[in-house]
Amino acid sequence: MVAPLKVGIAGLGTVGAEVVRLIETQARVLAGRSGRGIRVVAVTARSKAKKRGVDLRGVEWARDPMALATHPGIDCFVELMGGAGDPALSAVEAALNAGKSVVTANKALLAKHGLKLAKSAEKHGGALNYEAAVGAAIPVIKTLREGLAGTGINRVYGILNGTCNYILTRMEQEGLSFAECLKDAQRLGYAEANPSFDVDGHDTAQKLAILASLAFGTKVAQSAVYVEGISSIAPEDLRAAADLGYRVKLLGVAVRTAKGIEQRVHPTMVPKSSSIAQVMGVTNAVTIDGEGIPPITLVGPGAGGAATASAVVADIADVARGICANPFGRPISQLRDTKKAPMERHEGGYYIRLLARDFPGTAAAIATRLAEQKISIESIVQRHPNGGAAPEDGKAVPVPVILITYATHEDAVRRALAAVQKDKVISGRPQVIRIEKN
Amino acid sequence: MVAPLKVGIAGLGTVGAEVVRLIETQARVLAGRSGRGIRVVAVTARSKAKKRGVDLRGVEWARDPMALATHPGIDCFVELMGGAGDPALSAVEAALNAGKSVVTANKALLAKHGLKLAKSAEKHGGALNYEAAVGAAIPVIKTLREGLAGTGINRVYGILNGTCNYILTRMEQEGLSFAECLKDAQRLGYAEANPSFDVDGHDTAQKLAILASLAFGTKVAQSAVYVEGISSIAPEDLRAAADLGYRVKLLGVAVRTAKGIEQRVHPTMVPKSSSIAQVMGVTNAVTIDGEGIPPITLVGPGAGGAATASAVVADIADVARGICANPFGRPISQLRDTKKAPMERHEGGYYIRLLARDFPGTAAAIATRLAEQKISIESIVQRHPNGGAAPEDGKAVPVPVILITYATHEDAVRRALAAVQKDKVISGRPQVIRIEKN
Repeated sequence: MVAPLKVGIAGLGTVGAEVVRLIETQARVLAGRSGRGIRVVAVTARSKAKKRGVDLRGVEWARDPMALATHPGIDCFVELMGGAGDPALSAVEAALNAGKSVVTANKALLAKHGLKLAKSAEKHGGALNYEAAVGAAIPVIKTLREGLAGTGINRVYGILNGTCNYILTRMEQEGLSFAECLKDAQRLGYAEANPSFDVDGHDTAQKLAILASLAFGTKVAQSAVYVEGISSIAPEDLRAAADLGYRVKLLGVAVRTAKGIEQRVHPTMVPKSSSIAQVMGVTNAVTIDGEGIPPITLVGPGAGGAATASAVVADIADVARGICANPFGRPISQLRDTKKAPMERHEGGYYIRLLARDFPGTAAAIATRLAEQKISIESIVQRHPNGGAAPEDGKAVPVPVILITYATHEDAVRRALAAVQKDKVISGRPQVIRIEKN
Repeated sequence: MVAPLKVGIAGLGTVGAEVVRLIETQARVLAGRSGRGIRVVAVTARSKAKKRGVDLRGVEWARDPMALATHPGIDCFVELMGGAGDPALSAVEAALNAGKSVVTANKALLAKHGLKLAKSAEKHGGALNYEAAVGAAIPVIKTLREGLAGTGINRVYGILNGTCNYILTRMEQEGLSFAECLKDAQRLGYAEANPSFDVDGHDTAQKLAILASLAFGTKVAQSAVYVEGISSIAPEDLRAAADLGYRVKLLGVAVRTAKGIEQRVHPTMVPKSSSIAQVMGVTNAVTIDGEGIPPITLVGPGAGGAATASAVVADIADVARGICANPFGRPISQLRDTKKAPMERHEGGYYIRLLARDFPGTAAAIATRLAEQKISIESIVQRHPNGGAAPEDGKAVPVPVILITYATHEDAVRRALAAVQKDKVISGRPQVIRIEKN
């Protein structure tokens, strides 16, 4: 019998405590699957005194994360502290440089320093596993890194942030505003007091950068991701989407184009019949378009202590079994620089909502501006707020106009809308939402 | 650099030819991922002369599958001939006994002889990988075997047969009969000339037996699966399901109960809002309920040359990387005998459709028989074929009556319906469809 894998855990919040519990309660199954035992031998966390509901007798308490990471008595360092900077960064680096394997749930760390850490892992022979960093227990890292090893990938996209999907679902189903739903999400613990990281798309961008690297063999680079959040989405956009056969989701999309790898996070119209459109509430989902095969969609909880811990323990079991994949699926020498496809050259359909000052004249003006940019209109809907009757005082009331374009370029849309604004035929700023076909 | 993995492929149909092509075109990526090259060194198939669109120059042609399986020049035997018997069975066994690793897409072989083959693999140290056997490129085997290594599983269920799901989708969307849709499926190549293996549920049962073994650590046993097919489903069942907020799917369900592991394949009412209900056409899906975590659903193509080949190549890449999981996730000594939970003790809700001879009297008779068996009725719908008017000739016209029960036992339902039939208050046989809640 091989000696058990000796594990050190830094960070004992909900996830860390659940990892300790699972390793204990599932010991026999884990040993059977891994061919050896798994034992938590040392831990560290901010407070030693805190009640955590798990038995830590016989487990050494390390002074700090760095001491644990380089502890000669551990084989595998489990980082569950979070944050792209220290102490997580230096501890993970130190563990890898000491030849240990690392398991982490830290998407920020991977998105910002993944390449550097993968180099350390490769140089010293340790594993760097991070299934929990994207989509918690949804096995998307394993699927991209191992399951589709021989299949070229054209696109990977998904709903990677439960907070945003919860808010958009509530807005759609109950006709509420973004602000109201955000408040509810905060009350229910789905959103932070400072929600910007989630609702402005940065959380999604970090996860997308990791998926893009795995899918396309590029160096992970969060800075290559174009990001827009959901705070500008209004209930009327969701109603219009429904009328037109779409739903609005905050998607992270990484796609191979002639101009390079496009990585973008933005509110997106998806066909109501697509798998991704069915994903409601805090649930996450990732769709992978492999060459020559129909899409594969993985759906499940994207967060939560038990789901995250499940992925962490599976990663530890892989270390115990001696599986050591390249952290980003290929040797560092094969990872290419991320050629960022400029967003202005993005090609696709667009949903545009405008407030026309005076409908008949404005429609003509808008049509002209779009035509100048060679943008073809698939459909146009105007909604008279007063049922179409002329206002009694003779003054023009702004009329919402919704346009769906055929595939065109982002810069053409931007130029056309700038011209429309200059024409002063609309009130306020136009709303623009990109359309993603499946 | 490690020497390349030398692969022998038996069976060069669509899948086999695509595997050869992928190994060649993705050589660099595969080598990067696996840490070594992968080379097809020998093949065999029924006809050597057949055009396959792949370059087999420099590849040895083995006399027969057995010669290939034991060929001293190969490390990994890829079995793509199909069938639970010979030549597949003896060839796979011989390869494993010779210490080689085996990759196969053969669900029948695994469902019938999986335990014996896993024993050979364990004894001689080779891998036995079969991702393609269930859900083609959907990474369900890897997810159950590795991704949820430390998570107890309560239930695994899914749409595992594209032919049946295609037929049920067409029936629902177009109001067509089973026979019409089957004919279309045959014309489109989705169903065999002899469709029984698919539509009677046996294909699903084989796949379910494999998933159940992985999920629950039991010895794979196709004979432990209760099987019902879809040929009795009528368009009126699908209409009634829709009215009641359900869809009908042929599900394979394996669930841990107090009476043992229940394994069953039958047409099933699933809530329209569930992930599994959204899966239309030939697409497959598997949902895994892990302990304490929300369900994970994997959706994708369940068949097709490219999707199947993708999974086969990923399995070969795992062999190249030296990954050697227990074929059923645990050592043979830990696999328990399958305690078959008797179907009569199945607990759940039921949909029952009857043709009542004379409605008011019959309703009372049925209610009495159900009450005798302590079955509570959640809803009852009667549909007067003539809009409720009494027939002009004064004769009673049979009236469809649809009942939804609360959770009860299968044997109670069977006894109640036998009594109703004896009462001679209904025409024909009652239709019964089990309800699966998510």
